[in-house]
This record gives sequence, structure tokens and C-alpha cells, in this order.
Amino acid sequence: MSDRQYHVDGDLVPVDEATVSVRDRGFMYGDAVFETLRAYGGEVFRWAAHAERLANSAAAISLDHGLTHDELQRRIAETLRANDLRDAYVKLSITRGVQPGKLTPGTDVDPTVVIQVKPLPRGGVAADPIWDAPATLQTVKTRRIPDAALPSRAKTHNYLNGILARLELRVSDADEAVMLDGDGHLAEGATSNLFFVDGEALCTPSLDGPVLPGITREEVIDIAGEEGIPVNEGSFTLDDLRGAEEAFVTNTTWEVRPVESVDGIDVGGGPLTTLFQRVYDARVEREFYDGERLSDDGERAGAADEDDTA
Amino acid sequence: MSDRQYHVDGDLVPVDEATVSVRDRGFMYGDAVFETLRAYGGEVFRWAAHAERLANSAAAISLDHGLTHDELQRRIAETLRANDLRDAYVKLSITRGVQPGKLTPGTDVDPTVVIQVKPLPRGGVAADPIWDAPATLQTVKTRRIPDAALPSRAKTHNYLNGILARLELRVSDADEAVMLDGDGHLAEGATSNLFFVDGEALCTPSLDGPVLPGITREEVIDIAGEEGIPVNEGSFTLDDLRGAEEAFVTNTTWEVRPVESVDGIDVGGGPLTTLFQRVYDARVEREFYDGERLSDDGERAGAADEDDTA
Repeated sequence: MSDRQYHVDGDLVPVDEATVSVRDRGFMYGDAVFETLRAYGGEVFRWAAHAERLANSAAAISLDHGLTHDELQRRIAETLRANDLRDAYVKLSITRGVQPGKLTPGTDVDPTVVIQVKPLPRGGVAADPIWDAPATLQTVKTRRIPDAALPSRAKTHNYLNGILARLELRVSDADEAVMLDGDGHLAEGATSNLFFVDGEALCTPSLDGPVLPGITREEVIDIAGEEGIPVNEGSFTLDDLRGAEEAFVTNTTWEVRPVESVDGIDVGGGPLTTLFQRVYDARVEREFYDGERLSDDGERAGAADEDDTA
Repeated sequence: MSDRQYHVDGDLVPVDEATVSVRDRGFMYGDAVFETLRAYGGEVFRWAAHAERLANSAAAISLDHGLTHDELQRRIAETLRANDLRDAYVKLSITRGVQPGKLTPGTDVDPTVVIQVKPLPRGGVAADPIWDAPATLQTVKTRRIPDAALPSRAKTHNYLNGILARLELRVSDADEAVMLDGDGHLAEGATSNLFFVDGEALCTPSLDGPVLPGITREEVIDIAGEEGIPVNEGSFTLDDLRGAEEAFVTNTTWEVRPVESVDGIDVGGGPLTTLFQRVYDARVEREFYDGERLSDDGERAGAADEDDTA
């Protein structure tokens, strides 16, 4: 950790010197957008999709940062190289920077760009996944913020809603919170999208609700299309999830993670979950490692905690 | 500005060196609580009430920071003295600090305490108020976040909801956004509480809705009690506000600020608004300046922009 470097405001700096001004709007108001990325074999997975979502997040909060996707990609690559990392967790943040002291944002933006990285072993085909066990889910009282208050398509540094959800898990020690929308319908996990199997169809809450358009969610839907599995993006209840034949959660770090139980009710993975995991792994293997099987080097310390992604 | 000092993590530092780690949860997630305070004649106005609200904010997000009110007050006083400030704006923030890299907060908290200050002239009895003119209000589409998603009693660094509201004012150039709750009832301004006069009563949205318990709001209600003016804390519609005889908005910085118009409809101040302003000014004068009349020294630059308070 000690010689790790982050990229802050255009420069590589040691982690201990990676700071932002207390006047930065990213600190004062969470006035910032971010993406959590995963690098496999030195390259970022689905960069184009992440870059597009970042642009949508910025547009949702009228943050005209002026940085091109290429420039952001260049800085990420530079950060990975400087840390000699090929399989890594990457967090890219863009804030509205320092502005005169009022809440209303000025149009003149000098953004602060922060890139944090750390090792995240491959997992997948020939190694263990980065999580230790299938996920236990628990429904929480904290409801997802409605789109009318803060659009769910915007991935921002305003993350207290998910934190409050996770805090409710302290007693049960569950892995992930199941969050409902204001009407009591299934929305998503605190940092993941929800999937379950009902009969022949793969079900997932639609993006009409307060649901982040997850990059892994999109990948799974794409795999379903390729495999001829019908997908039902709709409005569901908690009972639909609890009574499902299989269930899994997705995010960039977890990839496809089976759900063991929901509110103590056994759900478990199953043949479709396994299929999605295998196809996902195969895609990563084929695209980033030329199909070579990596050996499990056992390097997993801390990685399972990386969950602020979807 | 150049030799101004802030208080960061226990030390006075020049503003240029006032930073937090990019790994601080205050930066990454807005996982922090704050108070905006006003110092008159070297002392913080209603410190006990602000300290109590800060404690409520921290409790709402389960942030057990371990700092006493006395210690926080000591740091504020130290910061004011170091900057030779008697009439000042003060922003006090407490974050959950740096923790291992996962969204779920750990129970072992090393909080980061940040105190920012800048001059804010007295205004009031013998000087101009810090705002240039009565406020123009505009209703916005962005709704207040419901308490079920993020409790309104918690004053946190998750401030994008108010920022989105203010962004909607870019076209009309109004001063403050009127925000409604999910059911379409009046909630509050982006950084202020709403008051209006209907017949003989002073009306303000009740704290049952998504409304911050403003310190100035409480002061105004206290003044109403002293003056024998009935107060109606209830549930109101936009038409109630638009059709009011008088209206004003309150926050720590603006104190009592008359409303000129709502959505272009003339409302204006009036005798009750003037009464609340005068009594408020008199209380400040009596408690902090021993009743001495201050001359208007014209020092107002930038102060009118300080609005992230309620």
C-alpha cells in the first residue's frame, strides 16, 4: 500500500498526498460523479459503457467538466501502469471543483479528477471469485431515493442512502440490502442490481424505477439474449424475489454473485445462475486474457470488501 | 483570503493546505454531517441548538464521532481567534473519516473535523442585511428526498437534491427554489425554511414532512410565541404560499428575509415580516453587542452568496 499512487487533478501522487481541498464541492456537497471500474489483464472492462454512463451522470447534475473520454482513459491507464497493476479495482471521480461559496453551482467549472486503484485479482474461470460466499440478502426499511428527488441514472458521491441501507444489516450481518422504491416494489441492492428466475424467465426490476443502469446488469441481459433466455424487466414485489427458484446480484466487482437467502428464506443459485457466471467468465477470459487459464495465486486479501459498485 | 486559516483534523492550517484524503468517506460518499453557524461579536449564535442538531444528524446516520460539544466549540473559538474574526460565517463538518474500502461503515471511527470561516458582517439593526434584496422564489420540479430514503433531520454532505433544485433557477435567475414533497405539499427552500402569513396566523410547513428543523425557524416560532402571534405548523399547498399576504424565508445567514414573489406572483413582505426582522435583530443586538449600535462599515463583499444554511 505504501508506495501506491493515485491520480489527482492531473498528477500521479502517493496515496498519503492524495487529497482534495475542503472547499471542493465534491467534499462539501458530494457534488461529484463516479464510476467503479475493473481492469482485467491491464485493460478496463466495458470502458465505453462506463464512459457513457459517467457522461449521463454528469449531464443529470449539469456538470460540464470538459474532459474527453480519451483523456480519462489515458489517466486511468497511466495510473494502472504507475502501480504496475493489471488486475485491479479502479474508482474514477469527477467533482465540480472549488467555486465561490454558494450552493448554486457556477457555470465556470474547474473539475477535480481523482483516480484510485488497488489490486483486485482476476477470479473467474480458473480462480476463486472475489467474494467469499454466495450473498445473504436482507430487506431494509430505507427506501431508494425517488427519481424526482435525485435521478437514479446519476452515479454520484451522494451515497448516504445506500449507507443507511447497509447500516441496517449490522444486526443480521447480511451481505447486501434489498431496497424497495416508495411504492414498495423491488428496486435494487445498495450497490448491486437484483436478478431472479421465475419459471423460464430471468427477471430484474426495470429502469423505470429508481434503479441504476448497471454495466454488469446490461452484460447479463446481453448474455440472456445470446443464450435465448427470456428477460422480464418489470415491476416486482419482495415476495417474487423470496419465492424465486434462483437469484443473483450483479455489480462490476462481484460480477454474477449467487444469492443464498433473502430475509432468512433460502433461495440459492441454480442452473441459470451458473450459466450466467460461466458465460460472463468466458467473455472476460476471451477478451482480456486470450483464453489463457490463469492459475489461482491466492492473492485475495481485502478484495471481497470492494463493493461500492453496480 | 490568503492568510486565512481553517481547522482541519485538530490543527489550524492555511486555507491552501486545508484538505482531506480522497479516501475520506466525507469525500467518497458525502458521509458527513455539518452545521452552518454565524458568529456575532465573536460568539456563535445559538450554539446549543446547533450542537444538538449536529448530534441528531450524526445519530441519524449512526456516526459515533466521540467529540464533545465543548471540544467542537473550543475548536470554533480557536479558528475565529486565529483569523481575528468576530462577525463571521462558520461551517463545521464531521466526516466518518478514512475506513477500509467498503461502503458499509465500520464501527471504529476516526472522524475528520473541518471548520471553515469567513467574514460575514453583522447586518441587522444599524446596518444592511447581508442579502441585496428580498428573495424571488420559484417552484422547481425536483422534489425533496422523502424521510424514508434520507431523514430530513440529518444535515449531511449529501446536498445534490438542493443543488438540482437550484440548477433549475438558472433560467429565471430566482434566488431560492421552493421544493415540494412527494405528495406535492410545500416542504422548504433549497437552503431555507418557508413562512407565510394567512389571516392572523404565521404558517410554516410542519416537521412531519421532509423539512429541516431550522435553527432560525425555531427562533421565529419562539418570537411568535412572545409576540402573541398564532403559529400554524401544518401541511400546505403551493397556492397557499402564492396567495399569502406576506411571506419570508429563514436561515442562519439570511436570518429573516422577505419574499418578493413566488413564481412571478407578487407576494411581498408586510407588517408581520418587519416585526419578526426587528425582534430578531434586537435579540442579536441585546445578546451579542450589549445593545450598542454598530455602524455600517460597508464590508459586504461576497457575503450575500453564503446561503448553504437553514
